[in-house]
Amino acid sequence: MPIEMFDLAGADPEVRFSPFCWRIRMAMAHKGLDVRTVPWRFVEKQAISESGQGAVPVILDKGRVLHDSWAIALYLEEAYPDRPKLFSGTQARGLSNILRFWTQTALHPVILKTIINDLFAAIAPGDKAYFRSSREARFGMPLEKFAFSPESGAAVLEKALGPFRAALDSQDFACGSKPAFGDYIVFGAFMWARAVSPIELLDRQDPVYEWRERMLDLHAGLGRNAKLAHGLTV
Amino acid sequence: MPIEMFDLAGADPEVRFSPFCWRIRMAMAHKGLDVRTVPWRFVEKQAISESGQGAVPVILDKGRVLHDSWAIALYLEEAYPDRPKLFSGTQARGLSNILRFWTQTALHPVILKTIINDLFAAIAPGDKAYFRSSREARFGMPLEKFAFSPESGAAVLEKALGPFRAALDSQDFACGSKPAFGDYIVFGAFMWARAVSPIELLDRQDPVYEWRERMLDLHAGLGRNAKLAHGLTV
Repeated sequence: MPIEMFDLAGADPEVRFSPFCWRIRMAMAHKGLDVRTVPWRFVEKQAISESGQGAVPVILDKGRVLHDSWAIALYLEEAYPDRPKLFSGTQARGLSNILRFWTQTALHPVILKTIINDLFAAIAPGDKAYFRSSREARFGMPLEKFAFSPESGAAVLEKALGPFRAALDSQDFACGSKPAFGDYIVFGAFMWARAVSPIELLDRQDPVYEWRERMLDLHAGLGRNAKLAHGLTV
Repeated sequence: MPIEMFDLAGADPEVRFSPFCWRIRMAMAHKGLDVRTVPWRFVEKQAISESGQGAVPVILDKGRVLHDSWAIALYLEEAYPDRPKLFSGTQARGLSNILRFWTQTALHPVILKTIINDLFAAIAPGDKAYFRSSREARFGMPLEKFAFSPESGAAVLEKALGPFRAALDSQDFACGSKPAFGDYIVFGAFMWARAVSPIELLDRQDPVYEWRERMLDLHAGLGRNAKLAHGLTV
């Protein structure tokens, strides 16, 4: 029986854009686990109320309900120990945890500011009022004022990616010679942007661009073949 | 025969403050390796010319001369495979490499700006002209103008440490339940400050303060017992 996963969807239910859900989609593909995703919208709190909170990813597996992408990754690692590892051990897990918070503080806010207009355009009509009011309360300003221009966003992101880019000088992936959960954490941020926005965040000469290309190809092109709200098939 | 290590020293030759040298001191202690440190000053380029460059740490081991703290760590891991590991494997090494560049971009500049006056006071008289001219060329301004106030420095550092602090919420060390090279990378930055400056960079309530306390106690208190330029024995 496949794992069931509530996955944030746009106006087009095939468009999936949550960076946290993308971590888990990649993690399940990494482990070769069957998954059935259920499109979920921001306002559908009732559908995931069993998880005790209101955000996705939420997974149902073997009668358990789990939420929070980090907790889900730890669960998958423990529940499927015979499958390829998301973390090579406790040291890699500890270091991935730092990378997680770095991604969420250094990358997520910049990417969100850069894609916010496209993101707002891509979400389901029924989500728009909720999204606008909750985000405007969080940002303390209208979405339109919060937004970076594409050029500013790309420039700020280029600088923010410094430590990650520098490491790619001597390794193909965040996790060394092979991708693992650390890579999926960073990649989730880029899939968030890719799914909803045609803005090119990375210069083609950037080693991070090349890394992202490698990531897009993984697991039979799971990322590359994802449906995009803006209809591009780049 | 002990490994010989050229170690940046202050006016007091017992005061050792290089963040990069501290990584290696801790790494050698971690592996239980004997080391004989040689106090070295910025202007003593000739003494390490065999390394082909002008910065420490430089180590001499088994007839080899090695430089660059990351390269030295990789060397120690390979040359002493039967000793406790600095990296549990390639994944931990890859993630530690990202942590290294994060430390150097997010922490080092802030700490340097905060301690620069104390650092300048602590270095050897023969190093002062070189240090001032090389650093003022790099910063594009006089040292005194470059400096943060202690309060500003601590405030900026508190914010910069965000991702590291957040991870400490669920683990005792950067590398999980036990310290390893990733921890020594971050700890080196704090030993740099501690050796030369009485400025308290961390609030005692900060989980990073508690982590630093644990690090100071490691390897028979190698960090805690280090000589301080300002004569404190905290």
